[in-house]
Amino acid sequence: MLNNVLDPELNLDRVFHALADPGRRRMLERLSEGPASVSELGKPLDMSLAAVLQHVQILEGSGLVQSRKLGRTRTCSLNAPTLRSAERWISERRTFVERRLDKLGEYLASTTEDQEENP
Amino acid sequence: MLNNVLDPELNLDRVFHALADPGRRRMLERLSEGPASVSELGKPLDMSLAAVLQHVQILEGSGLVQSRKLGRTRTCSLNAPTLRSAERWISERRTFVERRLDKLGEYLASTTEDQEENP
Repeated sequence: MLNNVLDPELNLDRVFHALADPGRRRMLERLSEGPASVSELGKPLDMSLAAVLQHVQILEGSGLVQSRKLGRTRTCSLNAPTLRSAERWISERRTFVERRLDKLGEYLASTTEDQEENP
Repeated sequence: MLNNVLDPELNLDRVFHALADPGRRRMLERLSEGPASVSELGKPLDMSLAAVLQHVQILEGSGLVQSRKLGRTRTCSLNAPTLRSAERWISERRTFVERRLDKLGEYLASTTEDQEENP
């Protein structure tokens, strides 16, 4: 995961790619309630264990999930800071647009007032 | 875009897929500052107009961007509500995890206090 730390851009590619699959989003929803084993993650999804493992690997590669093997069970947990970095990228863009639209609204309101005062 | 409205899950697939590319994120960053033509969007990116158009199509398909053709110029703008729906999905998961960790912290703190009181 060293690459992710060194290159936040590459990491965002991986995070958003990981989020683009409905099965992986279900897994993250499950993990937001608490850690779970790989087989627990797969249970509600109609897919083979091999497919589940592949999804888990993509989630781990993005840094959204971390896992630990204890005996024969691999337990996964959600990594909130990675989630936060993706959220921040989106919210910064959104705030930017909304602020711009607010200013535009104020400007339009002020010109309308001007017109009403000096028709 | 009717499909997107009818199936928010499919839409999240498309939105996160659209966000997973660094070139498309650059375009969205540019659009957060205000509307831009397709060629303006492509300028800072080292790619052909055909490639830029393909990216714009993916952005439009996700609902993140909308465009209007006026004469020979297609002008794109960012669609804040779609950005917000992606942000909401992430922030809901993040809030869930953080609340759970807070509760765990409180629980651990209370058991430590108990131990200190009754060593």
